[in-house]
This record gives sequence, C-alpha cells and structure tokens, in this order.
Amino acid sequence: MTYCVALNLQEGMIFASDTRTNAGVDHVSTFKKMFRFATEGERVIFIMTSGNLATSQAVIELLQQDIQYNVEKNLLNVPTLFDAAQLVGRCASQIAHDSQQIGHTQDTMFGSNFLIGGQIRGQAPKLYSIYNEGNFITATQDTPFFQIGESKYGKPILDRAVSYTTSIDDALRAVLVSFDSTIRSNLSVGFPIDLVVYPKDSLSMPQGIRIERDDAYMSTIRAQWSHGLIHLLQQFDSPPTDYLR
Amino acid sequence: MTYCVALNLQEGMIFASDTRTNAGVDHVSTFKKMFRFATEGERVIFIMTSGNLATSQAVIELLQQDIQYNVEKNLLNVPTLFDAAQLVGRCASQIAHDSQQIGHTQDTMFGSNFLIGGQIRGQAPKLYSIYNEGNFITATQDTPFFQIGESKYGKPILDRAVSYTTSIDDALRAVLVSFDSTIRSNLSVGFPIDLVVYPKDSLSMPQGIRIERDDAYMSTIRAQWSHGLIHLLQQFDSPPTDYLR
Repeated sequence: MTYCVALNLQEGMIFASDTRTNAGVDHVSTFKKMFRFATEGERVIFIMTSGNLATSQAVIELLQQDIQYNVEKNLLNVPTLFDAAQLVGRCASQIAHDSQQIGHTQDTMFGSNFLIGGQIRGQAPKLYSIYNEGNFITATQDTPFFQIGESKYGKPILDRAVSYTTSIDDALRAVLVSFDSTIRSNLSVGFPIDLVVYPKDSLSMPQGIRIERDDAYMSTIRAQWSHGLIHLLQQFDSPPTDYLR
Repeated sequence: MTYCVALNLQEGMIFASDTRTNAGVDHVSTFKKMFRFATEGERVIFIMTSGNLATSQAVIELLQQDIQYNVEKNLLNVPTLFDAAQLVGRCASQIAHDSQQIGHTQDTMFGSNFLIGGQIRGQAPKLYSIYNEGNFITATQDTPFFQIGESKYGKPILDRAVSYTTSIDDALRAVLVSFDSTIRSNLSVGFPIDLVVYPKDSLSMPQGIRIERDDAYMSTIRAQWSHGLIHLLQQFDSPPTDYLR
C-alpha cells in the first residue's frame, strides 16, 4: 500500500508520500513515490503515485521520456496544469488498459492513482487527484487536500486541523501526525517519508527532505502528539452520570 | 456499514455501536446493533454485530429463541463466555452458509462479524471478536479493545489513548472521539450511538444510554476535541528549516 497527501493552501502547497511498496508481507521494498518536473522560474510540478507499481513507474518513465525527446505535448510545455493532469490521466489509463490486454486477465488490478500539483507562471497553484480511469478532480478552497492509498487512518486529523487558510507550519504538523497515525496502524505504509513544501509563487523547485523513522523533529512530533492527546482527553468534562449507569 | 467498539479494561467494559444500516446511499435505516442477555447476579452478556443485516438479525433471533425454549445450550446456560462465543460463531457461520446455498450465489456477502463480551459469576470478564467464518479471537491486556465495521478512522485515537489500565472515564472519552471521527469521515456510520458501561464484577445489567447527535455531552466532547486538537498542534515545536527549504 501507500500513503500520499497533497495540500493546496493559501500560503502554498505541501506534498508528502511514504516509500513502502509491498506485494504480500514478505515482498517489501522502498520506492520513491514522489516525482518532480520543473523549469526554474516558469513551472514546478509534483506527481505522487499509489496503486500498481509497474503502472506507476511506466507512467513516470513515459512522462520523463516525452520531456527528453521534447514531444509535442509534455509536462514542461503544456500550457496549464489542467493539461498536465490530462496528460497523466490518459497515459495512466492507457498503460493499465494495455497491461490488462497483455496479461489476458480481469483479475489483476493494474490501476494507479496520481496526485499532481504545482504552479505555472501567471497561474494559480493547482492540485488534481487522478483516478484509475484517468479522469480527475481539483482541490478547492472547500476541499484543499487530497489523499491516495491507505487514507482512512490519517484523515480525521486533516479533516479537523486543515483548512485553506491554515498556515504552512500548522498544516505541516497535521500532515506529520497524519503520517504517524497511518504508519502506526498499517504495516503496508512505512518510513522514510518524502516531504516537499512549495511556497506559493516561488516558481522554484524546493529541495525537500526525506524523513527517516528516527528523525529528531518527527520523534518530537510523535512524543508531543502522544502525550498531548492523552492530556487533552483527560481535560475534557467528565462523563455525566447517565453515561455510566 | 457499521462501527462498533468494545473494550475489556481493568475497571470494566465499554460497548458502543452506531445504529445506521444502508444498502446503497438511498436505503438508509436505523437499527439497533447491540443486544443484551443477562441473569441478574449471575451473568451479563453483550453482543454487537456488523455485516449482513439479515444474517445478524437471524443470529440474534435464534439466540433469543433458544433461550425462550430453553434449549440445551443457550447463552444463559452455557458455562463460560468461551462457550457463548462458540455458540454465536457456529450459528453465524451456519446461517451465512445456508443463505449462500439458498441464494444460489457466490457474489453476495452474507457474512457478519460479532463482538461478544461480558462476565459470568466467578470468572473474569471476557471479550471475543467473531469472524465471518465463525472462529474468534480474545481480547488480552496487550490488545484490550476490538472494533468491527468501519474501523480505520477511529483506530488511531484508541491505539494511542487506551491501554488495559486506562480508567473507564478516560477510555469513554476516547471512544466518543473515535465515534465522532468515524461519523465525520464516513456517511455510512451514523448517530444515535448505543453505549453501555459495565463495571467489573457488578454482574448487573447496566441501563446504558442512547446518544443522539445533539446530546449535550457529545457536543461538548466534539467541541473540546476540535479546539484542543488545533491548539495542541500549534503548541508543537516549529518545523526545522530543512523541512521547509
């Protein structure tokens, strides 16, 4: 499985992905699930993937190849992020379909999901979530974040703590707690975490960071969350007597 | 869907279930998913169900009927809670199997899950989680709670806040937050919530409470959690600069 989150907020964007892939519990590997495409000063694009690894990798390689050979429509020359999302969606759907044909099977899931986001000069930052079928939805001020993969464990904290106007710093803490909750509850999601923060209108590719399990700040967040949570629950009003009788 | 949680703690047990059932999004109803069986002063048994409603209801009706007609092995005369769990598991598995035969189909899911817990005089309180297939596992001091149904959204808070020695009051608050997180994130889980707290060794059936969405204490918990959570995140150390570059 996989866990990826992307946020499109007032101050900028956050992209985070785990790096575990598995086919069964004894075929476990570390694979990067976050990919970057940029022309400094003009466009910055991030793509994260979940689902069938062969499909995800083929899509990314084809997108990279198209840039290398400067084909007519590639991620670095399409005019908008909408067009970029369409490129990825069509490519992904075609590859999954081809795999199904070649494999002569209906039983294997060849589909992949993608999150694609970023900014092109003169345009607002955009974030899209691309389905298996190649179609996609856009993040809005009402729904400023998307998750793909094993999303349920880490959703409640984001639902409660993140809105469009949340600061990058605050949202980042919520994202780290969301990852920690997911990793704690689900074996198929694992460290390290790839994290990138993109400040709105910078149009420059951030360095990003790979966060290991024993990372000092991650450990601090984990401890502060664990203690804070229990302390917080204890501060709540006591249950009324009719709850206990 | 459904969300049920049961805890077997040092001080006693907590059982909580939602009441929403649905087949698609426009066939939504309220059904009780928590059932009680007791001989005052001798045994107290709680059963909660998720999965196929027809199977769940048939199992409960048969269990009640067996008591009414005083068959040789029923919930009120078996010597241990292990035997009671076996009774429920076999009954559930048989009914699901029969439905599959009668329906001439492999495609419909007839299975149900059950949580059964309680106490018989002279014995320790016990809690079992019964699978579709009729076999079951026991809660231990290491793993003092079980969930059935839509369990992922509400698991992280229980994982962090509940251990065997947690007080009933503290565990109860965590259970309510767990339900609120699940209901907020998943349409197929809904109010009211049926809640029962069983103090260890009381051997008396508690009254319990049905918690509606606008219940005063539930609303307080919801508000205190929302505000407390955001406040807590803001108190965390700030992200180091290498997280943001």
